[in-house]
Amino acid sequence: MSKGRVCLAYSGGLDTSCILRWLLEEGYEVVCFLADVGQEEDWAAVEKKALSIGAKKMIIEDLQREFVEELCFPAIQCNAIYEGRYLLGTSLARPVIARAQMRVAQREGCDFVSHGCTGKGNDQVRFELAFYTIQPSIKIIAPWRDPKFFQRFAGRNDLLDYAAHANIPVTSTKAKPWSMDANLAHCSYEAGILENPDQTPPDDMWTMTQDPLSAPDKPVDVTIHFEKGLPVKLVTPEGKLTDSVALFKELNKIGYVHGIGRVDIVENRFIGLKSRGCYDSPAMTILRLAHLDLEGLVLDTQVRSLRDQFVTHNWSIYLYNGMYFSPEREFVENALLFSQRRVNGEVRLRCYKGAAYVLGRSSATEKLYSAEEASMDSLDNFSPEDTTGFIGIQSIRLKKYGLQKVEEGENLSRA
Amino acid sequence: MSKGRVCLAYSGGLDTSCILRWLLEEGYEVVCFLADVGQEEDWAAVEKKALSIGAKKMIIEDLQREFVEELCFPAIQCNAIYEGRYLLGTSLARPVIARAQMRVAQREGCDFVSHGCTGKGNDQVRFELAFYTIQPSIKIIAPWRDPKFFQRFAGRNDLLDYAAHANIPVTSTKAKPWSMDANLAHCSYEAGILENPDQTPPDDMWTMTQDPLSAPDKPVDVTIHFEKGLPVKLVTPEGKLTDSVALFKELNKIGYVHGIGRVDIVENRFIGLKSRGCYDSPAMTILRLAHLDLEGLVLDTQVRSLRDQFVTHNWSIYLYNGMYFSPEREFVENALLFSQRRVNGEVRLRCYKGAAYVLGRSSATEKLYSAEEASMDSLDNFSPEDTTGFIGIQSIRLKKYGLQKVEEGENLSRA
Amino acid sequence: MSKGRVCLAYSGGLDTSCILRWLLEEGYEVVCFLADVGQEEDWAAVEKKALSIGAKKMIIEDLQREFVEELCFPAIQCNAIYEGRYLLGTSLARPVIARAQMRVAQREGCDFVSHGCTGKGNDQVRFELAFYTIQPSIKIIAPWRDPKFFQRFAGRNDLLDYAAHANIPVTSTKAKPWSMDANLAHCSYEAGILENPDQTPPDDMWTMTQDPLSAPDKPVDVTIHFEKGLPVKLVTPEGKLTDSVALFKELNKIGYVHGIGRVDIVENRFIGLKSRGCYDSPAMTILRLAHLDLEGLVLDTQVRSLRDQFVTHNWSIYLYNGMYFSPEREFVENALLFSQRRVNGEVRLRCYKGAAYVLGRSSATEKLYSAEEASMDSLDNFSPEDTTGFIGIQSIRLKKYGLQKVEEGENLSRA
Amino acid sequence: MSKGRVCLAYSGGLDTSCILRWLLEEGYEVVCFLADVGQEEDWAAVEKKALSIGAKKMIIEDLQREFVEELCFPAIQCNAIYEGRYLLGTSLARPVIARAQMRVAQREGCDFVSHGCTGKGNDQVRFELAFYTIQPSIKIIAPWRDPKFFQRFAGRNDLLDYAAHANIPVTSTKAKPWSMDANLAHCSYEAGILENPDQTPPDDMWTMTQDPLSAPDKPVDVTIHFEKGLPVKLVTPEGKLTDSVALFKELNKIGYVHGIGRVDIVENRFIGLKSRGCYDSPAMTILRLAHLDLEGLVLDTQVRSLRDQFVTHNWSIYLYNGMYFSPEREFVENALLFSQRRVNGEVRLRCYKGAAYVLGRSSATEKLYSAEEASMDSLDNFSPEDTTGFIGIQSIRLKKYGLQKVEEGENLSRA
Repeated sequence: MSKGRVCLAYSGGLDTSCILRWLLEEGYEVVCFLADVGQEEDWAAVEKKALSIGAKKMIIEDLQREFVEELCFPAIQCNAIYEGRYLLGTSLARPVIARAQMRVAQREGCDFVSHGCTGKGNDQVRFELAFYTIQPSIKIIAPWRDPKFFQRFAGRNDLLDYAAHANIPVTSTKAKPWSMDANLAHCSYEAGILENPDQTPPDDMWTMTQDPLSAPDKPVDVTIHFEKGLPVKLVTPEGKLTDSVALFKELNKIGYVHGIGRVDIVENRFIGLKSRGCYDSPAMTILRLAHLDLEGLVLDTQVRSLRDQFVTHNWSIYLYNGMYFSPEREFVENALLFSQRRVNGEVRLRCYKGAAYVLGRSSATEKLYSAEEASMDSLDNFSPEDTTGFIGIQSIRLKKYGLQKVEEGENLSRA
Repeated sequence: MSKGRVCLAYSGGLDTSCILRWLLEEGYEVVCFLADVGQEEDWAAVEKKALSIGAKKMIIEDLQREFVEELCFPAIQCNAIYEGRYLLGTSLARPVIARAQMRVAQREGCDFVSHGCTGKGNDQVRFELAFYTIQPSIKIIAPWRDPKFFQRFAGRNDLLDYAAHANIPVTSTKAKPWSMDANLAHCSYEAGILENPDQTPPDDMWTMTQDPLSAPDKPVDVTIHFEKGLPVKLVTPEGKLTDSVALFKELNKIGYVHGIGRVDIVENRFIGLKSRGCYDSPAMTILRLAHLDLEGLVLDTQVRSLRDQFVTHNWSIYLYNGMYFSPEREFVENALLFSQRRVNGEVRLRCYKGAAYVLGRSSATEKLYSAEEASMDSLDNFSPEDTTGFIGIQSIRLKKYGLQKVEEGENLSRA
Repeated sequence: MSKGRVCLAYSGGLDTSCILRWLLEEGYEVVCFLADVGQEEDWAAVEKKALSIGAKKMIIEDLQREFVEELCFPAIQCNAIYEGRYLLGTSLARPVIARAQMRVAQREGCDFVSHGCTGKGNDQVRFELAFYTIQPSIKIIAPWRDPKFFQRFAGRNDLLDYAAHANIPVTSTKAKPWSMDANLAHCSYEAGILENPDQTPPDDMWTMTQDPLSAPDKPVDVTIHFEKGLPVKLVTPEGKLTDSVALFKELNKIGYVHGIGRVDIVENRFIGLKSRGCYDSPAMTILRLAHLDLEGLVLDTQVRSLRDQFVTHNWSIYLYNGMYFSPEREFVENALLFSQRRVNGEVRLRCYKGAAYVLGRSSATEKLYSAEEASMDSLDNFSPEDTTGFIGIQSIRLKKYGLQKVEEGENLSRA
Repeated sequence: MSKGRVCLAYSGGLDTSCILRWLLEEGYEVVCFLADVGQEEDWAAVEKKALSIGAKKMIIEDLQREFVEELCFPAIQCNAIYEGRYLLGTSLARPVIARAQMRVAQREGCDFVSHGCTGKGNDQVRFELAFYTIQPSIKIIAPWRDPKFFQRFAGRNDLLDYAAHANIPVTSTKAKPWSMDANLAHCSYEAGILENPDQTPPDDMWTMTQDPLSAPDKPVDVTIHFEKGLPVKLVTPEGKLTDSVALFKELNKIGYVHGIGRVDIVENRFIGLKSRGCYDSPAMTILRLAHLDLEGLVLDTQVRSLRDQFVTHNWSIYLYNGMYFSPEREFVENALLFSQRRVNGEVRLRCYKGAAYVLGRSSATEKLYSAEEASMDSLDNFSPEDTTGFIGIQSIRLKKYGLQKVEEGENLSRA
């Protein structure tokens, strides 16, 4: 008799193939699930493999649009960035995948969900917190944290032996000396030789960006239009795109060609370990720069400061830590959307050998910037004497501080 | 009889030359002061001009070392950045200049200090708040906010007429259609044609960076060593530098050649106006990237998060707004220094056509990163079951949220 | 010919009576305005006096409901407090008054608004920033900052002489040795003898609270019901009230009798001066405690922390500094309202001799608290082993810190 | 053969007596430890009981001074408070106890530490995170999270049976229907009947405060002197105290008599459960009010705001969550101490029937407050026109906002 039905996140790779087989051995029925978030994949081959190993079904869902519109675009509105460097490509995909997996689990009447994440990483946390929040009664099987599993499969060779024994086909291509995970937002590279943080990534590692050194000598200029902080139109020398996914993919293509969006960092995982990761995120990098720039033109300075300090900082951490489905993310995202009501306008950019540059920006509707008022040469509607008062009042408190320093024997004029 | 002695910040340009002359006419004695913060200048010519107009003295001080060590380097420790883009080059120079001007004013027995800043800008605020804090009793003459002055000199032509009449020599070179201000940290470009935020800066505007399009096809790799967050050694293909100023200037040179550090933004001035500014900051850009990267390797994640949210955010705003000499800057800088006690290590970087890239980083002394522990393949000293407990506890609160959503009729699994 | 029409905030007191007269002398037409925000006043006498001095009209508006509902209640939702002590009674009234004065000015076709605030206080800033934001084209006459006025009326005696000369009736009652300002939220006491911060306020100063020492020996218990963080019902031994203003006034009455809500502080004014203020705020004090308590029962901990750090802190400062009509206040208030969607329930309180105490709280609709789950004795749905994992993972980072300390020669176990 | 030596936190109660016995049965040697943090205890009886059950040693250490000076006083400097209500009495004691227990464990050559904390509470986390940080190699035995133990002892009766069987003497006094934990800072009451958050605590529950209703009709006035934010002298009608512990205990006594410092809340535990707790903290309540008040007089407004938002908020959360021994607590405490350098002065207070009231404050050394400057009547060193400029400049940005609202069709003057 079956122990119950499991919805397994199945990629077709060695790990999840062995997990699939092992779950069957353990007495579960298994429905496999694979999310299409824009990665390259031989979908038919994955399905064939899953079924051949013994899955009841192999369900593949195209989540590209919800991924771009519900996660990547809010990240752009937020100028999201983790620890000043990482554009959160993996973190953004996880909520969309977890949600779809739960939909499948519910539709297919599964009692369990399962995945092949390791026990030290962020992804297990992101997936499982999402699962539990979406359906608090769900039960989770995490083989890489189950001694029965991880003690049996202590290394890659054990998996290979098991696969051979179980007639699970293993791709003959030699494994790369690092692990990768791709989606529309980025490709990540970690582990293996990258665990040495001083090891420069080999040139052939990057998949979503050409080497800036090999990028074209001729730049390309594009224009991105935003409404309420959302990208709504991309104009390139080749034409215009307004569909969110099409626009995003086109920016990935341009970014690929011009080598834009590589980062190589040591980051802090949620569970308290430091780890090294490399990421190339072409579209996200270009969009973030454009959005950041437009906000300079159209956003109030105090709202911007609050948004940066509280919303951007926290939203990024929440996403990184797997807290997408949480009261706090919902709370700060509500504030984010409120801040974006007037983020309307367009930004002109140049893409060239590894970087994007802003060429100019404008807004047909927003008027917080006024060339006339900003001009040092014009005194219309401006009384320079006011600034004297402004400085005078600001100095009241500071003079007190100055006097206190004198009293303390500290000479502020000394270098 | 003299109305008193004024220490005037004198640059040798048209504005401050007219102000010098006007102060004399108004009955003041004037001691001129010019700070050397690394800008290009014909110092002898400036002195000659000041004295010929009637200054009592022309005092020029080399502030390069205190500028680099006391302002630029703390900014690097802080990863300082204003509104996500601007590295604060002008803001960093102001406190050093104001302090030196006050030293001169005190030494020369001046009752007044004066400057040529306009009434809408940030610099007047930065200078004057510094003056008042350093010496609360000082009196300030700000001609561009004094109706007697600004009503008489309503435009550039009035100044030119006045100069001609007073035999003040005017440089014949045609003025650029924007204004510039240079120091070791950057050169700024604003006003004039740049007041249109959609006007792309002309190629020949930038002075501290070559056009990335003209930069060499061959990258250059450098290594920067940090101790307590401070750059202490630069290794280039040409040799090693350990002196702070020499190291900083060498990075400016490398950044110039490879076109690194241009930004073009619309920013929010302290007085509430938006303005457009362009800045090229080669050394600061490279150093900031290196420091940011090293912190990933050696800084605790919670301290980093606090430092980012609280110190970096606020320190940058304080500097921008002229609050260097303030209790709040002193307060956050104390926290900053505390955070940097273990920021020791080195970062290898590549400079190429407009951008710098991290190639790797290491630290001989710091051990928060451990390749062994980070490795997904190793379970030494790690119990994967712990993560199950960690996730279980984190989910207690989130499950409540999930149940609340169900109750509200919101289906979290729906896209 | 008239210089234009002024809408003057007129209280009937000596200052604004002299200002009214002076404005007329200066050639303005004056419409007087007085807001009823719940203070005690002989409204007919004020009107008679204004008209007798020469005002075109005397307009009195009852703003009590909008004051309570639009300002006091959001402050309660926010647990608003300035510098940990002050419940912002005056700050809350200003936006409502300024807005009503602008409505009158617009209706009456006034080109100017005027007020009797002094040049060192917060109120001038609060009123004028509100005026300018509501109608950017408005012109403001602030006599106490106009040298023509303040040099002529250097002290109270000058005003009395002027009043005598102009046949302005002056109340014969001896002025109190402090100034007061009352509204439904509180009465404030400052200046005069209170300028010595070590001077204990005399017993007869307080007007909205009885001395706790004279309060009844018998406490009174009340219940306050909240919906979405708003007080919707008050139950007292005498009955139930659901109307916002009635409920608020009843709590003022109960707080008066039991002496609840006195504070005596030194605070920091927006313009950078420290000043001493005493305030009694009975209803606000009781409501704030009740709301704070209810949030413990029904609000998510992370949302609460964010709301405290970001919304409560900033909203209070914005209100204090006169930034009610501002993008930043609107931004944080949007977040505030979002946080209050589930703040539903009731709190039972005891009022007794100077303080209120919570007796208990409950919510018919909210379920984040569960006695069953909180109970140490029950292990249903709880695996104690999870906490071991939780602690284990949390300790990864902390052990690194511990090892670092050992390495630094610091012994954490030493006192 | 022994499994090793355990240092057990032993209170003499039923739980830890059974744990002691069980550890011995399991084959460990046990050294018992009990911290004296000011609670009432029959120390000799505890020792006798431990030894009679079989402990190798019973070590009792007086930690009162380090508790007051190293934890309670920094909490006062910080105005520490959790979720706006709780003064952290238990949280403050834990680091001191954990540290002393580790000292004992190290001195006695223990391989393990153990405690009787339950699996749902905060204390287990606080103790264990401290243990692990102080000595990362330590091993912890937490019986209430060990299935072998908690499955055997499912309820109080199982413990009683076990005690009877093992000849462990059990106090005959009937257990109270709640649990308590006392130290110098407070006594806490939770669980049992208190798990119903609407159950008013019975009058006889509170142990460190008299019922305000029974408190004397005559108030007592005291003066507290601070240096660098630390209480250094207490003056009461009965005399002066300068010793930290003596002063603290005297304030506890005064607070007891006058019924000061009761709170009753629902709080959020670190592990994500809400729980109800009652606390009476007489000395802490009085000291916190006095310190908060003094800061109004002597602390710069911007430093205070930063300290409140970042240090006070976070320090309190860190302590509550057991993160005393952590990089982040060390980081914010460094900032805290820096902020307190000039918190010098004295505060006069009245204690009366449940509350303390400030009567006045002064500082012989600090001069940020100036009655002269604050006075509305004096214009010495103040130009009222400056405020006009200050308001004018502040309004630049706000007018833009006002115009935006008009454009959006929103009328800011409407209620």
